[in-house]
Amino acid sequence: MTPSEGIERFIRPDLITFGGYSARKSPETLEGKVEVPVENIIKLDANENPYGCSPRVNQALATCSDLSIYPDNGQARLRELLEGYAVVNAKHIVAGSASNQLIDLVLRLFISKGDEVINCVPTFGIYRFSTELCGGTLVEVPRDENFAVNINAVKAAISGKTKVIFLANPNNPTGTITPQPDILELVDTGLPVLVDEAYYEFSGQTIVPLVSQYENLMGLRTFSKWAGLAGLRVGYGLFPPKIADYLLKIKIPYNVNVAALVPCRNR
Amino acid sequence: MTPSEGIERFIRPDLITFGGYSARKSPETLEGKVEVPVENIIKLDANENPYGCSPRVNQALATCSDLSIYPDNGQARLRELLEGYAVVNAKHIVAGSASNQLIDLVLRLFISKGDEVINCVPTFGIYRFSTELCGGTLVEVPRDENFAVNINAVKAAISGKTKVIFLANPNNPTGTITPQPDILELVDTGLPVLVDEAYYEFSGQTIVPLVSQYENLMGLRTFSKWAGLAGLRVGYGLFPPKIADYLLKIKIPYNVNVAALVPCRNR
Repeated sequence: MTPSEGIERFIRPDLITFGGYSARKSPETLEGKVEVPVENIIKLDANENPYGCSPRVNQALATCSDLSIYPDNGQARLRELLEGYAVVNAKHIVAGSASNQLIDLVLRLFISKGDEVINCVPTFGIYRFSTELCGGTLVEVPRDENFAVNINAVKAAISGKTKVIFLANPNNPTGTITPQPDILELVDTGLPVLVDEAYYEFSGQTIVPLVSQYENLMGLRTFSKWAGLAGLRVGYGLFPPKIADYLLKIKIPYNVNVAALVPCRNR
Repeated sequence: MTPSEGIERFIRPDLITFGGYSARKSPETLEGKVEVPVENIIKLDANENPYGCSPRVNQALATCSDLSIYPDNGQARLRELLEGYAVVNAKHIVAGSASNQLIDLVLRLFISKGDEVINCVPTFGIYRFSTELCGGTLVEVPRDENFAVNINAVKAAISGKTKVIFLANPNNPTGTITPQPDILELVDTGLPVLVDEAYYEFSGQTIVPLVSQYENLMGLRTFSKWAGLAGLRVGYGLFPPKIADYLLKIKIPYNVNVAALVPCRNR
């Protein structure tokens, strides 16, 4: 059957061959398939925190009284709480159901079909996934033999269709740090630059204090790694206020679940 | 400043004037603005369950040991658990961060820029929101004076660009039920028909047992209403297996948080 027949004739043509995302296996899917009992499996392939989260998270969830109420769609209290942690004014902050959702949201804001996204490979797989899901074209710029970003090559890859430059810093999976002057050279192109700082708490390096100085510099953070909350799905981004306002408008309503707010309220 | 200047020149042109979603206010945003203390506010405008969720949800969250681990991206165990509740084979099921996310996901699968979505107004606002976010065009077919769907008018509104027909059943906010023969008349057009059964547990009427018989009939359910879990963000859809496979491939990885799985595991 070709896509022109059956239900597939209604599906977006570019999604018929979409490859999806190659996710790490969860322990529960290995139950009975490996000799180790599921409760003894220690996952090491998704950079989850091996110490788990604070026991105070479970304690706070035990008494959480608003599981039946929609979270505030405007994230007012959550953005205030994150302001204290990120040391950036709340007007710059948008929270997401982990940074995966924010990566997708940023791309939905900028990418029309055929627009280009520059990606410094090898790097985190979600950038490719969401670019293709948004109908964009991924332009891959290989890192050098030390996995450093080749800034000149990135600048040479910019075209009239380029809308976003992605940079994981430190990079996943290579651990490489891109120096701040190199990042600012990309910001000086004027193009939206998204710096994914999922591992900031381990590297100590960040562009976040600079976000208020540029109209095109964006940072992403997550609670999945350092806080041991990969399962709760909570992350946040730091954006120029104009971009933050657009993102708040286009995000799916009530995107951050109430349980994910609990650790932020009780830290 | 016009959109051709500044950062807005990189934003999707159709999103510059995007209206967003008009969400209900959460109690926390009213703190200090009304005379009632926040803990005494009873929300009635978003159809949350006034009795809250089962106290067993908090008990189970108190001992949940996998908050630090990514949920299974393929939702294998969750789909099995939902199979038992929905009485539909797991291959038909896709779970989401509540049905808002599934509505958006279905539209992302079918809608390219300029495609049309038929909406029977007045109805739930998310259908408009996600159609416009996906670059689609909403074709509104007014309900009659009793808020019944005018099936002939819907069929007359179908064009070569129509990709999805939406139907909330019972309808939100009118409570109107569309009889099953009318729904099947729409299904017989061959177009993808999405029946949103968010209030199924209150109406008792459902198309879900028919999902396995058609390649274009889809149903949506949520735990936000009957189960009092609006804050946890968990819902599911019933789809023809071919559509379910596509949706699982294009959904944001790890889309259902671990806390939202807890009530499903412990029911």
